[in-house]
Amino acid sequence: MAQKPSIPKGTRDFGQVEMARRNYIFDTIKGVFSLYGFQQIETPAMENIGTLMGKYGEEGDKLLFRIQNSGEKAALAPEKGLRYDLTVPFARYVVQHREEISFPFKRFQIQPVWRADRPQKGRYREFYQCDVDVIGSDSLIGELELIQIVEEVYRRLGINVCLHINNRKILAGIAEVIGAPDKMIDITVAIDKLDKIGVNAVNDELRERGLSDEAVAALQPILNLSGSTAEKLAALRTILASSEIGLKGVEEMEEVFGLIETTGVKLNIELDLCLARGLNYYTGAIFEVKALDAQIGSITGGGRYDNLTGIFGLPGVSGVGISFGADRIYDVLTELDLFPKELQSETQILFATFGNDELRYALRWVKALREAGITTEIFPEPTKMKKQMGYADSKHIPFVAIVGGDEMAQNKVMLKNMASGEQRLVSLEELLKALKS
Amino acid sequence: MAQKPSIPKGTRDFGQVEMARRNYIFDTIKGVFSLYGFQQIETPAMENIGTLMGKYGEEGDKLLFRIQNSGEKAALAPEKGLRYDLTVPFARYVVQHREEISFPFKRFQIQPVWRADRPQKGRYREFYQCDVDVIGSDSLIGELELIQIVEEVYRRLGINVCLHINNRKILAGIAEVIGAPDKMIDITVAIDKLDKIGVNAVNDELRERGLSDEAVAALQPILNLSGSTAEKLAALRTILASSEIGLKGVEEMEEVFGLIETTGVKLNIELDLCLARGLNYYTGAIFEVKALDAQIGSITGGGRYDNLTGIFGLPGVSGVGISFGADRIYDVLTELDLFPKELQSETQILFATFGNDELRYALRWVKALREAGITTEIFPEPTKMKKQMGYADSKHIPFVAIVGGDEMAQNKVMLKNMASGEQRLVSLEELLKALKS
Repeated sequence: MAQKPSIPKGTRDFGQVEMARRNYIFDTIKGVFSLYGFQQIETPAMENIGTLMGKYGEEGDKLLFRIQNSGEKAALAPEKGLRYDLTVPFARYVVQHREEISFPFKRFQIQPVWRADRPQKGRYREFYQCDVDVIGSDSLIGELELIQIVEEVYRRLGINVCLHINNRKILAGIAEVIGAPDKMIDITVAIDKLDKIGVNAVNDELRERGLSDEAVAALQPILNLSGSTAEKLAALRTILASSEIGLKGVEEMEEVFGLIETTGVKLNIELDLCLARGLNYYTGAIFEVKALDAQIGSITGGGRYDNLTGIFGLPGVSGVGISFGADRIYDVLTELDLFPKELQSETQILFATFGNDELRYALRWVKALREAGITTEIFPEPTKMKKQMGYADSKHIPFVAIVGGDEMAQNKVMLKNMASGEQRLVSLEELLKALKS
Repeated sequence: MAQKPSIPKGTRDFGQVEMARRNYIFDTIKGVFSLYGFQQIETPAMENIGTLMGKYGEEGDKLLFRIQNSGEKAALAPEKGLRYDLTVPFARYVVQHREEISFPFKRFQIQPVWRADRPQKGRYREFYQCDVDVIGSDSLIGELELIQIVEEVYRRLGINVCLHINNRKILAGIAEVIGAPDKMIDITVAIDKLDKIGVNAVNDELRERGLSDEAVAALQPILNLSGSTAEKLAALRTILASSEIGLKGVEEMEEVFGLIETTGVKLNIELDLCLARGLNYYTGAIFEVKALDAQIGSITGGGRYDNLTGIFGLPGVSGVGISFGADRIYDVLTELDLFPKELQSETQILFATFGNDELRYALRWVKALREAGITTEIFPEPTKMKKQMGYADSKHIPFVAIVGGDEMAQNKVMLKNMASGEQRLVSLEELLKALKS
């Protein structure tokens, strides 16, 4: 009868300590999203398979988890699939509910997604995404607010970051001026890997993707642009002079950097022309955030898209959004030891008793403490004191109220500070005062 | 290309207003769970199919959603299924992690579950459960704390409820004394329906399930027991005198009611011998909570189980738990109009501007307000004022700061109270003061 219990590969259980830490991350992110007037929505875990298929490329289609009712015959093609990201369900949501929505629509969404990827270190088959988007406006205030949100989230979490920013229109302009206007996607996919595989491998890939040697050569000075943001943008104005879309991209970046200056954003921001991001629905600004003190790659990313909802029948709606990678943020906070210490235990005090009478006596104290908003536990049996104290230790509970016959006779408890070992006899009033401070 | 977007039947999208209300329910429940020292865990949405199969009866097996990797051939039997409830994954979790857990283990879990039920009003294929359990102790303090949690959750939500309580050992004793000891489950399944189908139909069902006419006749006085709790328990002591397990059940109920009195629980509590609850793993106290002012059935339920983890190889671990039905609580709060009004909008103020210069000017005010913790939005384009005001209206934003050239020249904004229509010119300092109060 007994089975050795386990969970599917690539999935995880989260215990209390992990949950307290994960909630700390989610609550911090939600707090900042809310401060900016973004509001939460949720969509179902399962979407109709037609909503998902073809949205993530051939590779993505293969990574979809499909769902069968138990009643269905196995031969029947499954009609539903698990959410693969939050972006496509969001696009579906906007189109489906467009009559109820006030635009610009500022929404955030924090939910798990599922991908049948090969599990490996740091890559899971179930993981949370934290997406924030504003849709229905092409104002660059959208870009500004997302940058401010990045600044505030990481300030609250205590992580030093650098935000890399680029613009797809600049990339399109580059493709134009090097004489390969139809190769914008090939170019962006290849140069997105510059950090990982180096310039030679990128150039090889560009040639494999059909770029001429001349085009590859023409691209090199752009890949190597340096100097301040203003200098880079000025150089681009010259390089892209013949490309209307390229100049539009430069203009957008100038405006975004102007807004950043106006509002005194203090975040490290780098105009990074090698940043391309893999997803092809981006059409304007693109972002990626890296932690400066941890080697972990991008912990937040996103960009502007001009036609996300078109595939569901609502064309011409512009939006911009970013996604915070909760798992990677967790790893960074762990590596840098930045989780607040008080997350170890929510319980402030445990009542430990020597007998059944004491247990009943203690219940009234416990009640009074909880009514005062103090997170309180009582060990449910008057078992060996060592066991009760061990429970407090293992849960990192800072105080124990010990109740024996003497304490009960005096209408007091013995309050033990678990860190210092100090003990003192206190009344309920004194106990409330001690715990509230 | 365009597809008419929809979601799978029995699933739901939650917009911002619904999410604010749902979060209010979840946060209230979590707040009370935490106050009692229960800590959150989460388990994966998918479990190995072996973990789920056979745990919910034949009917349940049919209602499992099974998961296929897209790569898998359809003929291949799926190895994974979506979580059907939180109880079986919790049992699996306890066994799998028993070396890391400090017992008694007080955990709560708030996650969606999936059932391939026929969708109907109030019944969904995806819905949240909010479970709280203490496992690893047979102390009736567990029952007491769950009752106190029920009291506090519904006090905070403002819902008048009655908690129905019974004990499976009493039901076993009844089966024994009416001469049908092997029919305990049949009896409980049948009398669980007393409220719904009436006494005659229950008696018919009992006979169909193999009870003799004598046994059915012997059961009637028990179904009709009345009087105070003390009177009912006293009568049961006599009726169940020959049943060891029955008397044990009476004793447990006496102890629970004693603890309730000791701690001054004010909740309506009714000893209800017709309460049986369908799930067969309960072995002691069982609970059900009904809203007094709404016709909706049970909104919370649970009980004690002595061998939940046995099926995963860890026998003899006693626990007690309850589950709050968030969807039904939502319906009750809606019906009785009990949601707090301030859930309508988190945003306190919108900045509306007459031009691009004003928009840039306003950005600095917006920043100062957010730094003061005030949820603030700015309409991202200086479009028609009517459109900007309409946005504030549709999001129920209580204040709008209107910025035109005059305001900007005086370093002020025009603050409009959207409820009263009143407008006044204010400085940043005055605005901060007005919004903080």
